[in-house]
Amino acid sequence: MEFDKKYIKLAIKLAKKGLGYTSPNPLVGAIIVRNGNIVGRGYHQGYGLPHAEINALRKAKKRAKGATLYLNLEPCCFFGKTPPCTTAIISAGIKEVVTSLKDPNPKVSGRGIRQLRKAGIKVETGILREEARKLNEIYLKYITTKKPFVTLKIAMSLDGKIATKTGESKWITSISARNFSHQLRFLYDGILVGIGTVLKDNPYLNYTPTYLPPLLRFAKQNGGGGLRRVRRGGKEIPIQKRFVKVIVDSSARIPIDVNLLKKSKVILATTKMAPINKLRKLEKKGVEILILEKDKKVDLLRLMEELGKREISNLLIEGGGEINEAALRLGIVDKVCFFVSPKIIGGSQAKTPVEGGGISHLKEAILLKELKCRPIGEDFLIEGYIKESSK
Amino acid sequence: MEFDKKYIKLAIKLAKKGLGYTSPNPLVGAIIVRNGNIVGRGYHQGYGLPHAEINALRKAKKRAKGATLYLNLEPCCFFGKTPPCTTAIISAGIKEVVTSLKDPNPKVSGRGIRQLRKAGIKVETGILREEARKLNEIYLKYITTKKPFVTLKIAMSLDGKIATKTGESKWITSISARNFSHQLRFLYDGILVGIGTVLKDNPYLNYTPTYLPPLLRFAKQNGGGGLRRVRRGGKEIPIQKRFVKVIVDSSARIPIDVNLLKKSKVILATTKMAPINKLRKLEKKGVEILILEKDKKVDLLRLMEELGKREISNLLIEGGGEINEAALRLGIVDKVCFFVSPKIIGGSQAKTPVEGGGISHLKEAILLKELKCRPIGEDFLIEGYIKESSK
Repeated sequence: MEFDKKYIKLAIKLAKKGLGYTSPNPLVGAIIVRNGNIVGRGYHQGYGLPHAEINALRKAKKRAKGATLYLNLEPCCFFGKTPPCTTAIISAGIKEVVTSLKDPNPKVSGRGIRQLRKAGIKVETGILREEARKLNEIYLKYITTKKPFVTLKIAMSLDGKIATKTGESKWITSISARNFSHQLRFLYDGILVGIGTVLKDNPYLNYTPTYLPPLLRFAKQNGGGGLRRVRRGGKEIPIQKRFVKVIVDSSARIPIDVNLLKKSKVILATTKMAPINKLRKLEKKGVEILILEKDKKVDLLRLMEELGKREISNLLIEGGGEINEAALRLGIVDKVCFFVSPKIIGGSQAKTPVEGGGISHLKEAILLKELKCRPIGEDFLIEGYIKESSK
Repeated sequence: MEFDKKYIKLAIKLAKKGLGYTSPNPLVGAIIVRNGNIVGRGYHQGYGLPHAEINALRKAKKRAKGATLYLNLEPCCFFGKTPPCTTAIISAGIKEVVTSLKDPNPKVSGRGIRQLRKAGIKVETGILREEARKLNEIYLKYITTKKPFVTLKIAMSLDGKIATKTGESKWITSISARNFSHQLRFLYDGILVGIGTVLKDNPYLNYTPTYLPPLLRFAKQNGGGGLRRVRRGGKEIPIQKRFVKVIVDSSARIPIDVNLLKKSKVILATTKMAPINKLRKLEKKGVEILILEKDKKVDLLRLMEELGKREISNLLIEGGGEINEAALRLGIVDKVCFFVSPKIIGGSQAKTPVEGGGISHLKEAILLKELKCRPIGEDFLIEGYIKESSK
């Protein structure tokens, strides 16, 4: 029904306000409607904070009785960081629940809906399913595989070069595209680069600069910094934005004084080739060391499992051509973002975004789907997903 | 004025019917309007045939008296293949001429407009100048430089590879993009490739297949083949579509029996390294030989001059990475068309669209402007122009 779609759309819009803060939880928005009037709205503001339904019920108060609750995801039915939402929905007297998706979390998976129905609540599901899936693509992968949703980010010239033959790469894309990538970083739990990038550019790998989502900007203006504050029971509670820097560095060549080690959570993925003394020094600086070796290289598959265990539900790879190729070949990557600059660099020795061995026959190529192209300043951003069949 | 724009737009639309046939002449459309009614329309159908104005005047007959003539280019005022249009306009009794652009042809260059004014005709100019410029970008370059307008066409994977490491390149793009490139070829006077492409793929370099502009399709259905027929004075006259295949082959390695030598005009650009006997054999097959050497390579700059002398006003380069790089570096290229396929090929040894030496510093990069991206089947086409400053 058109009404249902309208309110689910609103719920999805509201859910997006949590972008960057809810991981590993999903993005959820809730709208409570009684007699055609919205009497409550809420969204999940951050990991550990009340769920969307609860926020909306608190707004609606007694008006929730006999009302319809619109939600883009099945409500939870278990005690996690917060009590089950189903209980709250039932005791508030909600008459009908309209939702988009079953929650594939093994702890829910239709059980939430069954509980509601058992309590006499009418439940409709599947409204704007595709939009809802897209919104929570990260959560849906993570909750079913326990591995992060991985996006490969590349900045290249139109002729497919990520640096000149001498290695110069600052800057291929325009300031708008660079600001946009910082916004992109903000949406992720962490960023992964190879040691090559660290040694060459000594990057901070932050998501600080100019172009930030309105919420974070608001937080910054209010002294929040990387933090964001929410009001809860009259108090302001800070939420720490999760952001981990993951360095793939098989011999632990990372210098102790690089920029990215300053004031941030760093995971160093390395191998037995790394000197123990160096690893001890790094640990003292707060770096988490993961020794994950396969064929004398860092085992990226196991690294993804380890990150998943640490509730890193998504990751941005900004590697060089070698790491990018390995990640693609191993089927780790879910999404690609290619920033394409209106420049031609040329050179048979210039670096390209995906190197390594590469394929011999075109039928082995990694295929992409749902490709979109849009201008970002003077550059283009081409985004798409890896086709399952080519993983 | 809005009226003027409306009719000039119509003239431009009409002019496009001549696409692919008028070179080295411009694309021109003409609309004659009397008392708010269109009383004549015409376009330039092909090189050597009457100009747009003449076709429109013939349609209007006596109704041209006191009417306004809309034209996207200044009328000619000299005897070429046909008599001057200005004379015809004046003697038909046209009262006003509205046009978009001065013709930069040194033989015209405002003289046409002056002749009309002298005869008491009111002349307005500059209406939809930019659209008119764009329409005749090929003509405008050719008439002022006597060198062809050059478009570089590339088909690559999203990660910037034009073949796998083993050289496999059939097919990187989809059937839609390939059909589209055949349409693109049709719009040009010729195509240039390197001997590498000839030896590897033995291509026909035709513009034959499935997707053809309506006019050509019509001609084919009527037995026209590569020809197109126009009615003139009750007779059907065939116009040959100009299409030259230019091969850059410094040692004349081209085999005598390759596909592209069958039934088509071929120019072989070579150097003194080419064996005389081979060149004689090729000449016997009808190949035109141009010996243009610079630093033991084919001198592409002089090749462009030679093609210009032969009235090749535009050219499509479908070279490999080496020719593409040379053409870009030498400032020969005006426009680029990158077909980007939703595939990732990878491989540090895989060929890229622009190779050669390449630049060392990003500030030396060739810059592009007016970039547009649009989907062609499952691929994207990114088109743009070389910034003058980076030539």
